[in-house]
Parts: sequence; C-alpha cells; structure tokens
Amino acid sequence: MEQPPGVDADGYRIRPLELADLSKGFCDLLAQLSPSASLTEEAFRSRFEELAALGANHLVLVAEDAATGRLAAAGAVLVERKFIRRCGSVGHVEDVVVDAASRGRGLGERVVRRLVEHARGRGCYKVILNCTPELRGFYAKCGFVEKNVQMGLYF
Amino acid sequence: MEQPPGVDADGYRIRPLELADLSKGFCDLLAQLSPSASLTEEAFRSRFEELAALGANHLVLVAEDAATGRLAAAGAVLVERKFIRRCGSVGHVEDVVVDAASRGRGLGERVVRRLVEHARGRGCYKVILNCTPELRGFYAKCGFVEKNVQMGLYF
Repeated sequence: MEQPPGVDADGYRIRPLELADLSKGFCDLLAQLSPSASLTEEAFRSRFEELAALGANHLVLVAEDAATGRLAAAGAVLVERKFIRRCGSVGHVEDVVVDAASRGRGLGERVVRRLVEHARGRGCYKVILNCTPELRGFYAKCGFVEKNVQMGLYF
Repeated sequence: MEQPPGVDADGYRIRPLELADLSKGFCDLLAQLSPSASLTEEAFRSRFEELAALGANHLVLVAEDAATGRLAAAGAVLVERKFIRRCGSVGHVEDVVVDAASRGRGLGERVVRRLVEHARGRGCYKVILNCTPELRGFYAKCGFVEKNVQMGLYF
C-alpha cells in the first residue's frame, strides 16, 4: 500500500513532538521508560515551550501510527556546545522508548538514526548515550560503540 | 593566611568562566583534556555568548589561583529538561580538568561538588557523567556511583 508523504512503508510517521501528542499516548510511552505520573496539560505545554525555545538544539521525535494516530516510539537529542574540539558540539541521545505492542519492527532504530542524523546536521563531532548493558546490542546495531562508564549521583 | 572573600584557604577561587579567562590559561587546560587547537578570541567569545544565553542551564566553572591569576581547573554542567520524572531535570557534568601542576589538592573534587550543587539548585533529580574506568575512584569520592554503560557514535 502506498503511504502519504512522510509515512514509512509500514505506516509509521517519524516527526517532531507536537503539543497535540499529549492525547496521542505520549504519557503511556514515557511510563514504559521510567515510573512517571501522567503529565497535566499545563506541565506538558510548559516543558514543550521551554524545549521549543532551544530550537534545533533539543529535538524530541515521535513515531506515530498513521492509521490510528497513536504514538509508538519516541526519543530525544540534546546538542551540547563545548569549548574543547575547537568549540565542537556533542549530541546526547536521551529517553528512547518503543511501545511494547510495537516492538520488533525497527522503530527504535529508525528513531535513533534520525536523532543521530539531526545531531550530525547540527555539526556534532559525535553522539553519545548511556544505556543498560542489555541494550548494548541494540545501540551497536544503530552504529554505536561502547566507550566509557556512566556514573550518577542521585538526590 | 586569611584569603579575600570567595578564595579558599589554599588560595584558589572557584567561579564561573569569564571572557577574560582566555588569557588566563583556559586553552592550556582544555588541551590537557582533549587534543584541542588554541581558540581564537573570536571563537571563544562567540561560544561564551552562546552559553551565556542558556543562563543557569549551562554553567562552566573555573578554579583560579588568586595569587597568579592563572586557571588551575575547570568543569561544566548542563541542565537537561525532560518529560519523564514529571518533567524532571538532569545535570550532565562535562569536561572536568585539573592542570597537571595543580593536581593532588582536591581542586577537581571541589569543582565537581560545586557543579553538583548547582544542578541540585536548578531542581535536578540526578547528575550524571561519563568517564574512563580509571576515573571511577575519583568520581566515587565525589559521591557518584557507577550506573550504566556509555556508548558513542563518531562522525
């Protein structure tokens, strides 16, 4: 079946997050990534606008099922401006999640590859991310290599 | 010897990066972190202003030797705004470096602790960083625990 422009052959459209996505299952997706109470419309809108003010330096992508209008995956990339590497930039991939019912279709990989391309287009010399050991294979498939250790301090 | 306000007992002042720091050894510090050509004043100023526009969401700290006016350490923290964790925020510690001649005085730990306090003050629920395995002990001393693996994709 031929799909409308911007919709992949299997019926998913990968596009930037929109304000209307709160009612398309965005919270259900987030809850599969991290214990997370539902967002109020006000909190969502406020955070959405904060990120919009960062322009292309903070991109959140979603994969929408074009047939149902529900979100099936999401991911973000944040562009960090440095002084090292001749004032180079680094992309940080964050919060990649695929809805449990939509796994195994390559959606996660497509979202990650789009985030990486966005970072490359913003002039980044590398893209980095942190993941659990179980996800090494998935990110290796997306072109990543294991590099260092991630450490955290929790308040 | 009593020190002026803001200067630690051993003569170092930890403070935000300033435009004048290009002539106080900032490039020499960066070169100890990553192969990095000298920055032109124009490139430095331009990146400095880009980061200044992010306000408290991107802080670069330096440790200045109050006696000589030279920089002995630096580090940065970037505040990432998320949708997960009820629109929580995460601090990313980046580019921590101590001048070779000033190591062993706890300057790195003081800079990192100040970056962490800044992130906490901005409402972050955690601070994360990536490091080589050799630096695990240093960051553990700063309160960090090992968490996940870091992966990278290099252009």
